[in-house]
Amino acid sequence: MNSFIYDIPTRVYFGENQLGNLGAELSKYGKRVLLTYGGGSIKKIGLYGKIVEEVKKAGLELFELSGIEPNPRVSSVNAGADICKKENIDVLLAVGGGSVIDCTKFIGAAAFYDGDAWDILTQKVTVEKCLPIIDVLTLAATGSEMDCGGVISNPETKDKIGLLFPVMQPKVSFLDPTNTYTVSKYQTACGAADMFNHILEVYFNRNQDLYMLDTVMEGLLKTIIKFAPVAMAEPENYEARANLMWTSSWAINGFVNGGKMQAWSCHPMEHELSAIYDITHGLGLAILTPRWMEYTLDETTVSKFYQFGCNVFGIDPKLDPMDVAKKSIEMVSEFLFHTLELQNSFTEIGIDTSNFEVMARKAVMLGGLAYAFKPLNEDDVVNIFKMCL
Amino acid sequence: MNSFIYDIPTRVYFGENQLGNLGAELSKYGKRVLLTYGGGSIKKIGLYGKIVEEVKKAGLELFELSGIEPNPRVSSVNAGADICKKENIDVLLAVGGGSVIDCTKFIGAAAFYDGDAWDILTQKVTVEKCLPIIDVLTLAATGSEMDCGGVISNPETKDKIGLLFPVMQPKVSFLDPTNTYTVSKYQTACGAADMFNHILEVYFNRNQDLYMLDTVMEGLLKTIIKFAPVAMAEPENYEARANLMWTSSWAINGFVNGGKMQAWSCHPMEHELSAIYDITHGLGLAILTPRWMEYTLDETTVSKFYQFGCNVFGIDPKLDPMDVAKKSIEMVSEFLFHTLELQNSFTEIGIDTSNFEVMARKAVMLGGLAYAFKPLNEDDVVNIFKMCL
Repeated sequence: MNSFIYDIPTRVYFGENQLGNLGAELSKYGKRVLLTYGGGSIKKIGLYGKIVEEVKKAGLELFELSGIEPNPRVSSVNAGADICKKENIDVLLAVGGGSVIDCTKFIGAAAFYDGDAWDILTQKVTVEKCLPIIDVLTLAATGSEMDCGGVISNPETKDKIGLLFPVMQPKVSFLDPTNTYTVSKYQTACGAADMFNHILEVYFNRNQDLYMLDTVMEGLLKTIIKFAPVAMAEPENYEARANLMWTSSWAINGFVNGGKMQAWSCHPMEHELSAIYDITHGLGLAILTPRWMEYTLDETTVSKFYQFGCNVFGIDPKLDPMDVAKKSIEMVSEFLFHTLELQNSFTEIGIDTSNFEVMARKAVMLGGLAYAFKPLNEDDVVNIFKMCL
Repeated sequence: MNSFIYDIPTRVYFGENQLGNLGAELSKYGKRVLLTYGGGSIKKIGLYGKIVEEVKKAGLELFELSGIEPNPRVSSVNAGADICKKENIDVLLAVGGGSVIDCTKFIGAAAFYDGDAWDILTQKVTVEKCLPIIDVLTLAATGSEMDCGGVISNPETKDKIGLLFPVMQPKVSFLDPTNTYTVSKYQTACGAADMFNHILEVYFNRNQDLYMLDTVMEGLLKTIIKFAPVAMAEPENYEARANLMWTSSWAINGFVNGGKMQAWSCHPMEHELSAIYDITHGLGLAILTPRWMEYTLDETTVSKFYQFGCNVFGIDPKLDPMDVAKKSIEMVSEFLFHTLELQNSFTEIGIDTSNFEVMARKAVMLGGLAYAFKPLNEDDVVNIFKMCL
């Protein structure tokens, strides 16, 4: 069992009507605030107006960067960093989903670097300082609101790179489930698939586990399975939105990891997909996950699948372990493609075989797939991609 | 569903061989360190020597307060605060179980108050500042290593008072399961009973729950049930000690609470017991808990017991809910009195009826039992005490 450091200092205001604390929290870090957001949905839902009001009420000066992309691009990072330098920004206020928060983290880091922010992603330079970040979350999915990582795309090089730096951890996150009421049925499903996979990437591992963390992960998985369809059917169901929102944060804030050292599997593969095809991350994960499970199941891995099937899906523990394992993969497919109604193949979303080799090579190299739950080489990844057609 | 603030900034070094980080962590806060500990068991297990070595290696100056009691007394708080003032202490280093850490929290607060520390406990003065606290945990039980509360006794007034102040939250906790290898079978059992009850105090509530937190609590309870007997039978079983240690922190660090506002039930009653009889907290809780459950079970509360019985003890959900509820209470008794081998009555530990009324009055007044899961008045508490005879 590996040792580990637990350190999640983000303060979270969870629930409705907490924005009254925003001004005081921002003021701890200075007067000049850069508000970052995406395509403008925060204006449609009235959140933009409320935030501007709180910022003004606190006597702070507001600057803006809008238009951050769903798979955020390094050009947005550079644009934000330029504003930070030019306007002497003290604190960043990210309002949106994981893409906006991810991008804002690297803006905060690039504000201290005189050069192309891509140098940070390619690790030519390291990150030792970051402007303080406060966020208001509008989508339950990536968990970026409570971790120190982010993923940035470079359309020119067709790269999509994820990195973690402790200084990029948000200081404060505002998690109001009502801010996710207008998230579409489809994006709700993609978010659920994303957080579901975040847990599986850790749950399926070969380190000796802390049982208590396995039980927590099983609980989080059951929560997603229970409430994702409720939120899809009743978008303004507070209980469903609240459960999904808090689960998305805990799926990936580091708590459930508990010293496990192994590389993730589906995420590295998916990052290559969305780097080239610009698909929604959760959708790419959904298509990959059951195929990866099928490819990974064998006599050496069956016990973890058995535990998963019994404890998450309630499959009869008296059945043969391999049968439980296979049934559990069917249940995952059923959840992703029927309950969540996600497309279930590359073909359906316009991905053909033409980039399989290049994506497989990058996934193995950047994702360290040789150190995954079941070690995967380039041929393995191509095989999994083919199963997704 | 209530809103809440989540804020657990304690950094935790979990696992073996992490003490090499102690010097650097202490040095962040200054040069003059007050080491606090109990009766000297840390010398027997060699931990004292290792800590002194790390502190010296970091070039820090070490002062000491030993002899902190199992139910820590206000006299120890005053003694520690005196050292802090006289020696200009910069940082506190608590090495021990919950009693040592609790006491150290109030030492850190009383260091800024010129008067009897009991004034803090009786809330004549409030706590706005506290010396920084780092701890090395040697007993999995109270969760003090990751929360901002503590309980202090005053033998003169026969009071035992618990309070929370955010500034008392430990900055860093070192959780090495091997430091609990020498904890006796009996104290291991009492610690398990303590953490078990911490979860029940929150799990059984009338607020609308976040389902995801209920699933987490069910997982933590299952972990205690699974590993407490293992640690009792094999005191050097790392997996068992690690699971119990990390579970004890998460049982009460605030995470599972998630906005629930209701008062606790068994803790206020137990504090009165150990204030007068100086018994081990976990033992008092163990005797009270199944009686409180029995007294609390009725048509209005049965659904929570049903959920508990099915999800924690795996009782057949097809049975009648009231039967599941009753069976779940039997299983709790079985766990506490047979598996953990704890004494199961007041009579066995020398408590008679003579203080029932005074203890009941204080428990209701200090513990706010009118706002508990099942509201309890003085007569109710006396009735529960009588069931414990």
